[in-house]
Amino acid sequence: MDIEHLARGVLAGERRALARAITLIESGREDHRHSATDLMERLNAVGHGREALRIGLSGTPGVGKSTFIEAFGMMLTAAGRKVGVLAVDPSSARSGGSILGDKTRMERLSREKGAFIRPSPSQSHLGGVARRTREAIALLEAAGFDAVLVETVGVGQSETVVAEMTDLFALLLAPGGGDELQGVKRGIMEMADILLVNKADGELKAAATRTCSDYAGALRLLRKRPQDPEGFPKAMTVSAAEEAGLAQVWEEMTALAEWRRSEGHWAARRAGQARYWFEAEVREGLLARLRREPVKGAMARLAAEVEAGEVTAAVAAETLLREYLGA
Amino acid sequence: MDIEHLARGVLAGERRALARAITLIESGREDHRHSATDLMERLNAVGHGREALRIGLSGTPGVGKSTFIEAFGMMLTAAGRKVGVLAVDPSSARSGGSILGDKTRMERLSREKGAFIRPSPSQSHLGGVARRTREAIALLEAAGFDAVLVETVGVGQSETVVAEMTDLFALLLAPGGGDELQGVKRGIMEMADILLVNKADGELKAAATRTCSDYAGALRLLRKRPQDPEGFPKAMTVSAAEEAGLAQVWEEMTALAEWRRSEGHWAARRAGQARYWFEAEVREGLLARLRREPVKGAMARLAAEVEAGEVTAAVAAETLLREYLGA
Repeated sequence: MDIEHLARGVLAGERRALARAITLIESGREDHRHSATDLMERLNAVGHGREALRIGLSGTPGVGKSTFIEAFGMMLTAAGRKVGVLAVDPSSARSGGSILGDKTRMERLSREKGAFIRPSPSQSHLGGVARRTREAIALLEAAGFDAVLVETVGVGQSETVVAEMTDLFALLLAPGGGDELQGVKRGIMEMADILLVNKADGELKAAATRTCSDYAGALRLLRKRPQDPEGFPKAMTVSAAEEAGLAQVWEEMTALAEWRRSEGHWAARRAGQARYWFEAEVREGLLARLRREPVKGAMARLAAEVEAGEVTAAVAAETLLREYLGA
Repeated sequence: MDIEHLARGVLAGERRALARAITLIESGREDHRHSATDLMERLNAVGHGREALRIGLSGTPGVGKSTFIEAFGMMLTAAGRKVGVLAVDPSSARSGGSILGDKTRMERLSREKGAFIRPSPSQSHLGGVARRTREAIALLEAAGFDAVLVETVGVGQSETVVAEMTDLFALLLAPGGGDELQGVKRGIMEMADILLVNKADGELKAAATRTCSDYAGALRLLRKRPQDPEGFPKAMTVSAAEEAGLAQVWEEMTALAEWRRSEGHWAARRAGQARYWFEAEVREGLLARLRREPVKGAMARLAAEVEAGEVTAAVAAETLLREYLGA
């Protein structure tokens, strides 16, 4: 594979090159992984200086997440912006079904020239999904995309992962009922920069407005974080169905991003994220040795001795570390 | 330190030897750690064949956990049984306060000759607390204790840790209100072998009976686990204050243990736990290399390059793994 050629295609914003590059980084084959690392390194070395607004988006099922993403994406492409949509769904490997897995779900947006939609890669562990999603974000950014939406379900661990790879975090809520009633896990609310109360239309409009002002009140009680300008975190109503309030959401997001850039929070956050993923990859790479021979076999033999009570867990672990892992 | 002598003291059930041994395993000093491993290995090699009933006990604050443990422990010692009480409290290191930290909390029980109470060691991480608790359990078992209660707070992660080192798990609840209202995290209910609705006395007696039968009904709807005999998991009422129902709790626990022994589940669970902790210690030992020189320094230098965008996280991680960790 001509990685140099592929990198040039991505930098030129060519759709086919981008699709091929993402397929490459999602591959589990060892030679593909080497090529993918080579590709990412080349794109990094170019110093293209392009930065998309990376937006994490969470919300429990039923809140209208895909309708919102499609309407929000259409609004952006209509304004001449390029938008990528990715998903982090740790459950997709098990369930077979996946958020964004259903291609028809965002049919209109997927036909847009300025949009690029990719479902969650079906990896068995969150770490694998996280790596591929980070690389896909970097590819979309190198290809000149203005915004990358990273969608996830409101289940806790995946939100933390998404927050570690995005510039801001939006939480979509339904009118009426508190966040706990809606199944939003504790801790996710605290991560949000923008709360979006969806379905502010028809007979739910009044309820949405009320829910929004309830949240706005609650947000004012929270301690101000250094990375927040006046008025943030912010609660807003939107109607994905009626495509209302979407441009305002984008305005607020870009205003927040602009402030964070000027105050140095943007760069600090991206640097901190880079360090976080470096350390995560080191840990993962180190632990991968336990799954390879001869360590794997020795570990199985020692585990059998531990199970039989012939040796304590501590001594068996010490033995393995000393004799097979040079630790 | 004469480890051979200490081991003999523990096996003879000497209180002072036991206390010294537990102090030794709780020490963070490197030479103490070596002596502790030596001690545990000697006790394991003796093949003393003693097995305590290891009981995990959880319950949110206010449910009467210490009153229950004291009353339950007094009932056991009165029947001539030896009972140990340990705590796993991951928060103790931070908060300074600790469950069981207050020595006066179980004043009566702590004066009993047949009882041995030890607060949670103040470690900074759950892994350290877990190791010391496992070793303390093994020491109490070697010293001929009949039951070891491992207490924890209902916060989730520590329950999983306690379940991986005990033979059965009991959850203490208050009358009235569901488990979620009582702050019991999801998943903990599913771990319980016995639900104990406490405070079945005075004006709360009727509520306790009702709550208990509600839970009994709910438990019948759960899918039967292979490790459960007919009628388990079980819900029971107790009154720690009036010391009522405690002997029945012990009877149910021993009946459950007896059935699991005869069906092979007991040995299988202990073997599985031993393997689990062996693997956990290997992982922890491997990752400890990242905190030692020269890896630590190299990692810091590479992290700075990653933060500055000079190299991608993936390539930096590969470099560290290849050049410093032989992986």
